[in-house]
Amino acid sequence: MRQRIAVLGATGSIGDSTLAILAAAQAQFEVYALSGHQRLDKLFELCKLFRPSRVAVPSASVEAFAARLQAAALPTDVVGGDNGLNDIATDSNVDTVVAAIVGAAGLPSTLAAARTGKRILLANKEALVMAGQLMMDAVANSGATLLPIDSEHNAIFQCLPMDVQQARTHVHERKHGIRKLWLTASGGPFLDKSFAHMQQAGVAEAVKHPNWSMGQKISVDSATMMNKGLELIEACHLFDLPEDKISVVIHPQSILHSMVEYVDGSILAQMGTPDMKTPIAHALSYPERMSSGVQPLDLYQMSALTFTEPDLQKFACLRLARQAMQAGMHATITLNAANEIAVAAFLAEQIRLTDIADINEQALTYGSKHFSVPSQASLEDILAIDAQAREHTQHLIAQLV
Amino acid sequence: MRQRIAVLGATGSIGDSTLAILAAAQAQFEVYALSGHQRLDKLFELCKLFRPSRVAVPSASVEAFAARLQAAALPTDVVGGDNGLNDIATDSNVDTVVAAIVGAAGLPSTLAAARTGKRILLANKEALVMAGQLMMDAVANSGATLLPIDSEHNAIFQCLPMDVQQARTHVHERKHGIRKLWLTASGGPFLDKSFAHMQQAGVAEAVKHPNWSMGQKISVDSATMMNKGLELIEACHLFDLPEDKISVVIHPQSILHSMVEYVDGSILAQMGTPDMKTPIAHALSYPERMSSGVQPLDLYQMSALTFTEPDLQKFACLRLARQAMQAGMHATITLNAANEIAVAAFLAEQIRLTDIADINEQALTYGSKHFSVPSQASLEDILAIDAQAREHTQHLIAQLV
Repeated sequence: MRQRIAVLGATGSIGDSTLAILAAAQAQFEVYALSGHQRLDKLFELCKLFRPSRVAVPSASVEAFAARLQAAALPTDVVGGDNGLNDIATDSNVDTVVAAIVGAAGLPSTLAAARTGKRILLANKEALVMAGQLMMDAVANSGATLLPIDSEHNAIFQCLPMDVQQARTHVHERKHGIRKLWLTASGGPFLDKSFAHMQQAGVAEAVKHPNWSMGQKISVDSATMMNKGLELIEACHLFDLPEDKISVVIHPQSILHSMVEYVDGSILAQMGTPDMKTPIAHALSYPERMSSGVQPLDLYQMSALTFTEPDLQKFACLRLARQAMQAGMHATITLNAANEIAVAAFLAEQIRLTDIADINEQALTYGSKHFSVPSQASLEDILAIDAQAREHTQHLIAQLV
Repeated sequence: MRQRIAVLGATGSIGDSTLAILAAAQAQFEVYALSGHQRLDKLFELCKLFRPSRVAVPSASVEAFAARLQAAALPTDVVGGDNGLNDIATDSNVDTVVAAIVGAAGLPSTLAAARTGKRILLANKEALVMAGQLMMDAVANSGATLLPIDSEHNAIFQCLPMDVQQARTHVHERKHGIRKLWLTASGGPFLDKSFAHMQQAGVAEAVKHPNWSMGQKISVDSATMMNKGLELIEACHLFDLPEDKISVVIHPQSILHSMVEYVDGSILAQMGTPDMKTPIAHALSYPERMSSGVQPLDLYQMSALTFTEPDLQKFACLRLARQAMQAGMHATITLNAANEIAVAAFLAEQIRLTDIADINEQALTYGSKHFSVPSQASLEDILAIDAQAREHTQHLIAQLV
């Protein structure tokens, strides 16, 4: 029986890597459903190639997309909007949901998949940043399997003891002798540049990541190291550890993808060519292993691996993420929302790159006074704060430009 | 119930590290037996400190050592020689045997422990180099647990899937998606020196290892990289892989202790401060983890990690080890025996450091013509070849000096 896969966010960078693996392993996997948002021409090509049973598009595009599929005599049903995404994420024919939608937009469908007990390959870090407790409770209650495919979290997952991997939600720090986690960061394109240089940097320079090919939003997040901040929050939830048990280390070569440190002095690390197909293949075939098509790392030709401490003055977003994690869910929702709005403003050339951290910090300060989350927060509570934080951030940006 | 430990080779470097851990964890472990060979004064001090039930010394020293213990009112029984070591290794009160005798001398007691189903912490690589098949068969038949404490093999062990770790003997390469193993080597004190320099090197320079504090024999083996060759043969047996599935990579900082490469492109590595207490603590507490007292690795202060291909012309012993592994058991016995004799001759300043590889190669050539091992070789068969190889090597050295 083939594993039936739904790829939510099929036209993005994670979608590309996932579908490249699935195309090469059709005996094991069936591409049952796809979703896309902006690149519908690309989504249409993917429908021709994989002939999925279902596809989700924005509500306004359902009719036109259905007509295109029909004209091409494709058997694919079309659904629309958030409801359409949820339909696919919870479809009883789906075994595995690849949650690869970028940003807060991915939260409802990821949570729906968790509540339905799916096997979830998690790339959408916002689901945990915004709704960590909800997600982890849903996974525990439904018996879902949560497999991180962010390269760092996947690396940590691979370095955990098997019983912690299979407990799904808790590291049980004491029992397993885990001292701490190390999250590696490339440092992005401004690692060796001054803060003054960063202040003047344009979009083209900011999105040019040295090692990974990624979408624009996440590339800007790498440039500010907000990406590492979001990953830190994600890791706290995923591995059930406080933020002070997770250190960040700059490793510009992006060869060693993250580490687990044990009380005996052992540090287990996962290394490899920086290519998302490796963590995705790991998660698709877990607990077995499958070929990913990734070029093996040539240890004889590899450059020296270096490790340094991050500069929290230059990369203030990383400091803000720790602060938000300590403050609680309202703060991580606010930080994520403010950052999405601020990054969009930077990409629209309305603000400077270094304004992002300032705006995020102001939003956090505002949120700490005006936002709170009930102890048993619902998705609606979370989305309400997310909306308010976005609105306030728009206001902050309007004052700036 | 405390785990009762016998430390065979208690006065050497591995013994030191093991006893440091045991001294700090007496609630969990009882030092039930010790053995020593040359440093009997040190062994006596250890008897005063740990008050073991039994101690093994060379046959000729039994009476004198017993008298000393009695004079100090210590409760320890003394046994002598190989029979004494075997007695301790198979004692029904012993749970765990730390097999830390250096060289072929450690084989009989290690094999005896394997046959008796003990938990074995294996530092004596010669047991596998000389009698790999016997050892692994004994482990499988008796239900013994073999935990490597050589830093490299322990690192590989930690990076294997849990079900391979617990299968004890077989990697089952295909099923677990293991592509190959990487054995790291510091390159020893002559890594950046010329062959001409190596030819003229004296004992003091050869035994000065850059990262590890070890005994003289193993330090010379590191200088010639014979140590890595012996480890390669050990790894082939321990992990049930042919030699071409195990690559050696020079890593002069000795931070990353070895790796397992998987088919998805993941390389799992174990890192840490170069201190034998880490792998020993790992094995003592396996599958849990215990504190080893080792200073955690400071990733922020660590120097760059570099990796290069070994020079098999300069380090011919490594090439000879691969050749011997391919040729079979008679060749690995011969290589190990010849090397022990040649290293002793170098330490006695009878031959040059670079003569060791030449002598080893001549012994292998002789062995391929004159030695063979029956398909179900016994310990006696092995020891007979070992003795012949030593005799022939003495002859080769006599021609040289």
